[in-house]
Amino acid sequence: MSQPSSATLPHYELLYHPGNPGRGEFIRLALEAAQVPYTDVSNSSKEGYALVQQTCMSPQNLSSSDGNPPVFAPPALRIPGGGGQSEGGGRALVIAQTPNILWYLGEKLEVLAPGGGEAGRYHVQQVVLTALDLNNEVHDTHHPVAVGKYYEEQREEALKKAQDVRETRIPKYLSYFDRVRQHNERDGGGKGTYLVGSKLSTADTTVWQVLDGLMFAFPKEMEARKKEFPELLGTFYGNVKEEGGLKEYLSSKRRLPYSMGVFRYYKELDRQ
Amino acid sequence: MSQPSSATLPHYELLYHPGNPGRGEFIRLALEAAQVPYTDVSNSSKEGYALVQQTCMSPQNLSSSDGNPPVFAPPALRIPGGGGQSEGGGRALVIAQTPNILWYLGEKLEVLAPGGGEAGRYHVQQVVLTALDLNNEVHDTHHPVAVGKYYEEQREEALKKAQDVRETRIPKYLSYFDRVRQHNERDGGGKGTYLVGSKLSTADTTVWQVLDGLMFAFPKEMEARKKEFPELLGTFYGNVKEEGGLKEYLSSKRRLPYSMGVFRYYKELDRQ
Repeated sequence: MSQPSSATLPHYELLYHPGNPGRGEFIRLALEAAQVPYTDVSNSSKEGYALVQQTCMSPQNLSSSDGNPPVFAPPALRIPGGGGQSEGGGRALVIAQTPNILWYLGEKLEVLAPGGGEAGRYHVQQVVLTALDLNNEVHDTHHPVAVGKYYEEQREEALKKAQDVRETRIPKYLSYFDRVRQHNERDGGGKGTYLVGSKLSTADTTVWQVLDGLMFAFPKEMEARKKEFPELLGTFYGNVKEEGGLKEYLSSKRRLPYSMGVFRYYKELDRQ
Repeated sequence: MSQPSSATLPHYELLYHPGNPGRGEFIRLALEAAQVPYTDVSNSSKEGYALVQQTCMSPQNLSSSDGNPPVFAPPALRIPGGGGQSEGGGRALVIAQTPNILWYLGEKLEVLAPGGGEAGRYHVQQVVLTALDLNNEVHDTHHPVAVGKYYEEQREEALKKAQDVRETRIPKYLSYFDRVRQHNERDGGGKGTYLVGSKLSTADTTVWQVLDGLMFAFPKEMEARKKEFPELLGTFYGNVKEEGGLKEYLSSKRRLPYSMGVFRYYKELDRQ
């Protein structure tokens, strides 16, 4: 769990779709907060996305790359030399699934660990997983009945789904995240600023990204919710943006704008 | 990672809704496969569900129990004495989120670890998380637009969602699970029987449960898919049922029948 100097860290490779924050953003935020070197493969070269498609999106593949098992869908993380001695030493490890990758980085990069030992790590991960569940529900507001079809083909169902997510699911999740924050303020070292423990963890970066995406997708809804959750949507949200590593990243070109990914703005799906 | 004798293991408590396999079943299967003692709190006493509701379902709670942070929803696992020395020694650890609990058990119960060291554990977890994603998509076939409303109120949308899940999502997931199996047969020690490594892991129990649930919810669809995936739906599915611990469990009263949970049978949602 000790933090290696960046000279001894593997050079991480993020394998994800280009041009959108998407699920890759949860991993970018963790890497940027930890200030470790990585390559965002699809967004770094013209050939990058072909490599991602070959590794993570080929429906006949019996392996992703480097002898690792196949991947269902991006994002994946390629860790040169991460495959370990017991598996032939020094070959690359390729792992998929956003929460799996975030757990891996939390284990390897002490700067992302919340303190509190084992209990702290599992308490971070349960918040991460819950925030990613909300991320999935938000995706389904514009794709409620068919993942592979256009929004315009399921607009009627989307109106119903978005109403339910806005009126019942978002407040339920926001209440949970805020109660985690209050618990940590009362019992932990969070001072109301962090969700678990006394410093930034993937719980903070992951919840922050979902809140930021919600503010883009449902601006009226989220503006109205600020009265109920002033600390979560005000102080907490604002403080994460100022964290070392994240402040520079969020104003850089590496931070991609939202467009047609998980978080989309359709006026008719927001609070009217 | 060494396997403690059951005398030194904590007595795990599963906190989940009563009367349904649901998401709790993924955890039951892991505990039963490992043959470790546990209490299924809701199904063990009349007062059990009240305790689960108080711990995991109280929307005002700032703590689940024993000083642990709040839980969004069941399932949770309570581990007496699991809170660790650094947190006041011997207090209970309460952790939530199905994949988080499965990772915890995989770390603590060597019998569930796949071998292959660190790489093997992350490769197990990416399969676990992907199977649980499919589990969520199946839930949404009967609740596509409003989690809190009855199926009958969203039946029209459910017909569309179920068609998409049957025709595009199920084959995509089955192809992935089968390619993981083939990869392990070719490169690992799985002999086509296990998904990762040379013995049973939570990857196998979790995929198995989703396959079993799909066979209940979509019997015609799954019967037709057997031609495409004979090893996965035949040999693999059958072998997991015969594993030590699971064989006895699956014919016991502890194995709950499907009813109105994640996996439901509505004739109109199956292949016609």
